[in-house]
Amino acid sequence: VGSEGTLGIITEVRLRLYGLPEAMAAAIANFPDIGSAVNAVIRVIQTGIPVARIELLDETQIDAINKYSKLSYPSRPTLFFEFHGSEAGVKEQSGNVADIGGEFGMSDFQWSLKPEERAKLWQARHDAYYAAIALKPGARGWPTDACVPISRLADCILETKADVAASGLTAPLVGHVGDGNFHLTIVLDPDDKHEFARAEALVARLAHRAIAMGGTCTGEHGIGTGKIAFLEAEHGPAVSVMRELKATLDPNNRMNPGKIFRA
Amino acid sequence: VGSEGTLGIITEVRLRLYGLPEAMAAAIANFPDIGSAVNAVIRVIQTGIPVARIELLDETQIDAINKYSKLSYPSRPTLFFEFHGSEAGVKEQSGNVADIGGEFGMSDFQWSLKPEERAKLWQARHDAYYAAIALKPGARGWPTDACVPISRLADCILETKADVAASGLTAPLVGHVGDGNFHLTIVLDPDDKHEFARAEALVARLAHRAIAMGGTCTGEHGIGTGKIAFLEAEHGPAVSVMRELKATLDPNNRMNPGKIFRA
Repeated sequence: VGSEGTLGIITEVRLRLYGLPEAMAAAIANFPDIGSAVNAVIRVIQTGIPVARIELLDETQIDAINKYSKLSYPSRPTLFFEFHGSEAGVKEQSGNVADIGGEFGMSDFQWSLKPEERAKLWQARHDAYYAAIALKPGARGWPTDACVPISRLADCILETKADVAASGLTAPLVGHVGDGNFHLTIVLDPDDKHEFARAEALVARLAHRAIAMGGTCTGEHGIGTGKIAFLEAEHGPAVSVMRELKATLDPNNRMNPGKIFRA
Repeated sequence: VGSEGTLGIITEVRLRLYGLPEAMAAAIANFPDIGSAVNAVIRVIQTGIPVARIELLDETQIDAINKYSKLSYPSRPTLFFEFHGSEAGVKEQSGNVADIGGEFGMSDFQWSLKPEERAKLWQARHDAYYAAIALKPGARGWPTDACVPISRLADCILETKADVAASGLTAPLVGHVGDGNFHLTIVLDPDDKHEFARAEALVARLAHRAIAMGGTCTGEHGIGTGKIAFLEAEHGPAVSVMRELKATLDPNNRMNPGKIFRA
């Protein structure tokens, strides 16, 4: 998957299936600032609480969702949680998370085991992209992502948010905080060349910032054609090794040519 | 790691650390036959009970341990369990396992949260190799392993035990059943050419049996020099691709030459 189709073609896939957990719970809560939210997540992970999903939305994204989905969440960095296990297990996990959150200024903790309430709590998260692009009528979204060691995540997000503000762009933030991975959706008019150029520069600064923090220019979205220069910045001479491996497996450069690196 | 040193040298390793679980519990129980023990494990996994470790010892291995460690476990296939989580969590997991085990004829379920009792329960497992080779004074152990889809594990173990019995060799069995992986320790006199040849043939039949069941000729021990022919049987033309990749990364064949495949 990481080769983005440049090394082979998947002709057969065997899936490992996992049973549905006996119980699932969802929770949502907000924090006074991004640093508190991220530090709460770090503590939860270090404590060994097996949270199935933890998602961070910044206040810009929350504002967008409130407008789009007619909700009224406080305009603060917000964490979405999902817990899997037995009913007693998810109750215990949620209680532990609530206790830890309390140490980091967490407010408005809502929690539910019921499927319809869980779906409602997470709906806001699922609407995030559409809510973001609805901020500017006629706009399109340029999604980008980066990933850093979780110990640098709060720094990377704070610097990136300051950068977004200075750039004059609109770019709500969503993070898979447990992995150190976060996304910006830059909301822009693709025909506005000046705005597009500013977005391009913002994406480049984010990639180099993540690399400088020991991270990677992309956590999930991949290199494709747009991040070829950042892959070189990130891996240096290792890119030549990748090129040699591709030449060995695909001597005629037929598999997704032009992706990841130039031949 | 899977390349067994043939593609590069590890010069730096970054470890991901996990916190110690709040509570750990150990359990041991025996079953009327291997099929029941394996089917109980399959049910435990399918139920989503997050057991940290499940190990199977066959009755030959249990007999060896009883003799070596002066214990008196029933001479039956025996499962060793370890549970990680909160105290309530490991109690719940253990209770669920005990319930499921009951459906498969499980007996003598012993369970403990206390470190010294946990250590005692698992000691028998840790002594397995030494107990095996102590079965024949002056003997050495030839450990071998194979791995199959867990749905074929009971079949593969039963056929292998019948094969061991027919071969006249002594070879206790230990299985990491949750992974479909199991080990034989063939206890033999390496200077006895006839015994050695019978062991070699047994290892080959086990490898081909595992491959025929959709598994692999080794789950953990690796190919090295001894399983080169089985890797070819298992992967066919893909071995040529491995050879080409090695030639690309190591054109002078300096890294662990002669391992995994012949150059």
